[in-house]
Amino acid sequence: MYDLPTLEPIRRYKSIAVLTSGGDAPGMNPAIRGVVRTALHHGIKVYGVQRGYSGLINGDIHVLSSKGVSNIVQKGGTFLKSARCSEFHQATIRANAASQLRKLGIEALIVIGGDGSLTGAHLFEEETGLPVIGIPGTIDNDIFGTDDTIGFDTAVNTALNAIDKIRDTADSHERYFLVEVMGRSSGFLAVHVGIAAGAEMIAVPEFAVDVEAISLQLATSKRKGLGSSGIIVVAEGNAPGLTNRIAEQMAHHGHTPYVSILGHIQRGGHPSGHDRVLASCLGAKAVEYLLAGYSDMMVGVNQGQVVDVPLDNLTRYRKGLDPELLKIALQLHK
Amino acid sequence: MYDLPTLEPIRRYKSIAVLTSGGDAPGMNPAIRGVVRTALHHGIKVYGVQRGYSGLINGDIHVLSSKGVSNIVQKGGTFLKSARCSEFHQATIRANAASQLRKLGIEALIVIGGDGSLTGAHLFEEETGLPVIGIPGTIDNDIFGTDDTIGFDTAVNTALNAIDKIRDTADSHERYFLVEVMGRSSGFLAVHVGIAAGAEMIAVPEFAVDVEAISLQLATSKRKGLGSSGIIVVAEGNAPGLTNRIAEQMAHHGHTPYVSILGHIQRGGHPSGHDRVLASCLGAKAVEYLLAGYSDMMVGVNQGQVVDVPLDNLTRYRKGLDPELLKIALQLHK
Amino acid sequence: MYDLPTLEPIRRYKSIAVLTSGGDAPGMNPAIRGVVRTALHHGIKVYGVQRGYSGLINGDIHVLSSKGVSNIVQKGGTFLKSARCSEFHQATIRANAASQLRKLGIEALIVIGGDGSLTGAHLFEEETGLPVIGIPGTIDNDIFGTDDTIGFDTAVNTALNAIDKIRDTADSHERYFLVEVMGRSSGFLAVHVGIAAGAEMIAVPEFAVDVEAISLQLATSKRKGLGSSGIIVVAEGNAPGLTNRIAEQMAHHGHTPYVSILGHIQRGGHPSGHDRVLASCLGAKAVEYLLAGYSDMMVGVNQGQVVDVPLDNLTRYRKGLDPELLKIALQLHK
Amino acid sequence: MYDLPTLEPIRRYKSIAVLTSGGDAPGMNPAIRGVVRTALHHGIKVYGVQRGYSGLINGDIHVLSSKGVSNIVQKGGTFLKSARCSEFHQATIRANAASQLRKLGIEALIVIGGDGSLTGAHLFEEETGLPVIGIPGTIDNDIFGTDDTIGFDTAVNTALNAIDKIRDTADSHERYFLVEVMGRSSGFLAVHVGIAAGAEMIAVPEFAVDVEAISLQLATSKRKGLGSSGIIVVAEGNAPGLTNRIAEQMAHHGHTPYVSILGHIQRGGHPSGHDRVLASCLGAKAVEYLLAGYSDMMVGVNQGQVVDVPLDNLTRYRKGLDPELLKIALQLHK
Repeated sequence: MYDLPTLEPIRRYKSIAVLTSGGDAPGMNPAIRGVVRTALHHGIKVYGVQRGYSGLINGDIHVLSSKGVSNIVQKGGTFLKSARCSEFHQATIRANAASQLRKLGIEALIVIGGDGSLTGAHLFEEETGLPVIGIPGTIDNDIFGTDDTIGFDTAVNTALNAIDKIRDTADSHERYFLVEVMGRSSGFLAVHVGIAAGAEMIAVPEFAVDVEAISLQLATSKRKGLGSSGIIVVAEGNAPGLTNRIAEQMAHHGHTPYVSILGHIQRGGHPSGHDRVLASCLGAKAVEYLLAGYSDMMVGVNQGQVVDVPLDNLTRYRKGLDPELLKIALQLHK
Repeated sequence: MYDLPTLEPIRRYKSIAVLTSGGDAPGMNPAIRGVVRTALHHGIKVYGVQRGYSGLINGDIHVLSSKGVSNIVQKGGTFLKSARCSEFHQATIRANAASQLRKLGIEALIVIGGDGSLTGAHLFEEETGLPVIGIPGTIDNDIFGTDDTIGFDTAVNTALNAIDKIRDTADSHERYFLVEVMGRSSGFLAVHVGIAAGAEMIAVPEFAVDVEAISLQLATSKRKGLGSSGIIVVAEGNAPGLTNRIAEQMAHHGHTPYVSILGHIQRGGHPSGHDRVLASCLGAKAVEYLLAGYSDMMVGVNQGQVVDVPLDNLTRYRKGLDPELLKIALQLHK
Repeated sequence: MYDLPTLEPIRRYKSIAVLTSGGDAPGMNPAIRGVVRTALHHGIKVYGVQRGYSGLINGDIHVLSSKGVSNIVQKGGTFLKSARCSEFHQATIRANAASQLRKLGIEALIVIGGDGSLTGAHLFEEETGLPVIGIPGTIDNDIFGTDDTIGFDTAVNTALNAIDKIRDTADSHERYFLVEVMGRSSGFLAVHVGIAAGAEMIAVPEFAVDVEAISLQLATSKRKGLGSSGIIVVAEGNAPGLTNRIAEQMAHHGHTPYVSILGHIQRGGHPSGHDRVLASCLGAKAVEYLLAGYSDMMVGVNQGQVVDVPLDNLTRYRKGLDPELLKIALQLHK
Repeated sequence: MYDLPTLEPIRRYKSIAVLTSGGDAPGMNPAIRGVVRTALHHGIKVYGVQRGYSGLINGDIHVLSSKGVSNIVQKGGTFLKSARCSEFHQATIRANAASQLRKLGIEALIVIGGDGSLTGAHLFEEETGLPVIGIPGTIDNDIFGTDDTIGFDTAVNTALNAIDKIRDTADSHERYFLVEVMGRSSGFLAVHVGIAAGAEMIAVPEFAVDVEAISLQLATSKRKGLGSSGIIVVAEGNAPGLTNRIAEQMAHHGHTPYVSILGHIQRGGHPSGHDRVLASCLGAKAVEYLLAGYSDMMVGVNQGQVVDVPLDNLTRYRKGLDPELLKIALQLHK
């Protein structure tokens, strides 16, 4: 695990709220638990908001107890439920939401979610003045300012587990498989899964897919007796159907790979040990940052340490793939 | 496990061969091991044929040793490789294949595979006189004459494991999921998976899918406060794209379920304990049946016992779903 | 799955109760769900008794709803809790327990548990006249009259999963491992696990362990170059410490195997697909047998069919290992 | 994953060797693969040494090909085998080993192993002048100078998986379990597993175990209705039998916890995604460090980056538990 900062409490809060927003990620439950237990430890009352920002708008907000977060550390998804909420894009709606919280005496909000959810959190804080801390929770690990996000490690393991099974059939039938993993704009998941699966090739949204080159390499590999089966990991990209299109184009070059779209299984499942510890720590530190007077920030990971990242940064920059990691992927999988 | 017959050896064989054919199924490896070790125990030489009937035609046939089948009991797929082989539909090709075997002094053949592969085995025996024993290996469990097939139990567990993950997202987002499992002409896998997953509904090829009824039930369930999320298990059926079509039709009734196609992960993975024991026993008994003078039969399971089933029967009858099991599925999932 | 009987309802019940007793087994939850949903389907009120027979004595009994058994099908253990209850060995206590049930208008009891628990159920019925149906739930599969019990299949898979991991170290370090699995008086679990794990040897309580013979075989195997690592599965037997004693005795013959006691992990975990379907069916049929006028019986499995087994039989006979299965174990693992 | 250094090759090697030493750890195989494929990419011949330093002494050394390390990325243990080798503690033996390598024209050695193995590597380099690079491979994560070691992440997940199962029984029977995990002198594994499992208490070798305090807390928790079941994670410590002794002492305070010793299952199993990527990167970078002119160092992880750590340091300092992590463990688990 990462080094953890020592934070001195300088502010007091009577009541805070926590919510999960956007796509669910394994580890959201231990993150909520981390928030709740740490807050109670400091004598702060904690409210859980149901269904992300929707619950904020509808006032679907309830007190959470220490016992209420027992036995959830190992469960996938989020027991507070989650939702995407387009209404929250409107400033008037956000103002309303702040009133809901203030009506209940809630003085700060902790938001667990991905890029979009944390951007919403930033606007909410800026406009309403209500202190907000974000916790990065998404299987895509594509949030700028943090090297890790809750759910990413679990998703890598889930995808790998599926690919280990698929390889049985690939080997038995001497076929190539195109395996599509999540990742609309980033190839983080695909690269990690690809290296870990010993994939023969990896296609990521950061680079154009060259079907001709792929096909050529397969043909060469077969001719040289280096094997006629294998796994090609494909990040789904922005336009649905990418992997099937690649398969069709490969058919023009004489290859007939099978296609397997991993889909929603990547979101669920028991969180891995890493994600449970990470989530527990980020949840605990989110509360401690609040008490140390911080706001409008995300509890992120940088250079092996848990740090504060201004929420503002998330919208300004975009995270890139490590070229050294890509290089290793290329060198090892031949 | 099932009761096992006691068989007296009355015939002698010097050399036999074993192959795996058609779609791979977890447990084929322990079945091969069962054949090899039992044959060697009886002083019979065993050959492994590569790539199913293709290897028979091409003479891709090698001697197997006891050590050569060590440490494969837990591996998915088939180390002899498998393939579908359309040429084997021709009688002249089958005659050639028999010559290949006889040239090597091989006196009998054990075929591990599904419906089509075992039908081919029957024709082969009928035409060439070479004794053949079949072992049912398919995740579909759709072979007439046997209550169980190697790979079915593992596939149920694999599908369940995936659905347990999907349910995390279904619950967190309060959505319904249509989960497509394998099963072109039979709903065995779908019914077992559906009952075991506590699915809200199950669609099988044996009955027409009534999208209107499904949609109505979802609406009723929501209105009554019985939940607004769940899993609907769909057997893939004969025409590709069924599950997506159901989703589109449900959209006309105001529902927007997510779709998850489990696909090839269902074929692979470590065989379950049940499938490893079943495969070991069927492999061992296949050899013992040969020695007891049997031929042109499949080692199947009936009324809790391992029995001989004439291969002839497979083509004449079709296995049906147990109506009592369907009734239970309906009663429990509401 | 097994064939299911068709049963005609001839009796009416207004209220019944269900409890889980003795060691917990994975699949007890879907069995409870099967009982509850089927009873509700027939218009019967269902009560859940907490902590086995203790809850019966203390009147810790509550109504169960259809929703209350939602989302438990995949969970290990038993949500009704379980306990061993020595007081229930006294007839006066059993009479008291019956009064507790009658006070609540409960007319019949369904007991999910092992040998001891079902024997208690038989006495209870005999003495108090309150109809009782038993459901076999134990990972040991050692109940006379039924070929299968809820939890056995899962325990086999759990033990295998552990042994697959242990084999990594055995292979890497070229060592033998003695792996102790559950089974005080019966070797069912050990034999199934041993065959499925490809174990080099299996020690069961039904036969005396011959350490000298084991040691000799290891030495021979090493000398012949057949391998110097492997797995020896040992059923725990009646006297604690058996496996460590075997290890000590082997040391006198120059072998230093590692010891791994699998212990309690074998009881827990998500029930396998097989156990979930079996439990669902036995739970449903338990209620249907009641309605068909049966009592003082266990819903068991025989010759591939779900059948009624007089509870009386359980105490009279003892289940034996299939000698054919043992023979296969011996022939395959060399 | 961690940031990776960019290294410029300034030296040439014709042949290098790689070995795995000490206790096996999941991820050693992808580390070997990382070494082999990267070396071949740079035109270097790679030898694999069997059984750690023993193979070095006996000259059990063979050339490795790219294909020879195919399909091992997902396998536990080490295909080069491993052993503890007490002879290597003698300087004359180490000198002999160097001759063995030089005889084959091998110019450098990469050692994958734990504390003791890497200390041996340091002495070997110092005395013989043969360049050595170490890769930290141990499930204990107790090597000074690196925040992470190959196998740790997998071991955390394996232990968690077992505890998730044990919790089913703990909950069903309302009992406490003392679960012993590996860790002779360090509590890293215990703390991570404890936080991730939501354990009620954690005992580590860094602090004396206070059985009275534990017993008191259990009694308080029960009295307050906060639950009467749970998990106490215990690191094994230096003296065998610690966990059983704690259980006996707790009995004097009126508690009868069950004991579960996880044992060797923690060493094996498929490496996790994290460990596969880490191992692949460390393997690749070990070769690149060699080419960049480094020696007598370990490829470690510090502040989120892969860095070079002088092997010398390992013997001088001892790694400590992060007090902030312990604090979080205490605050969350009540």
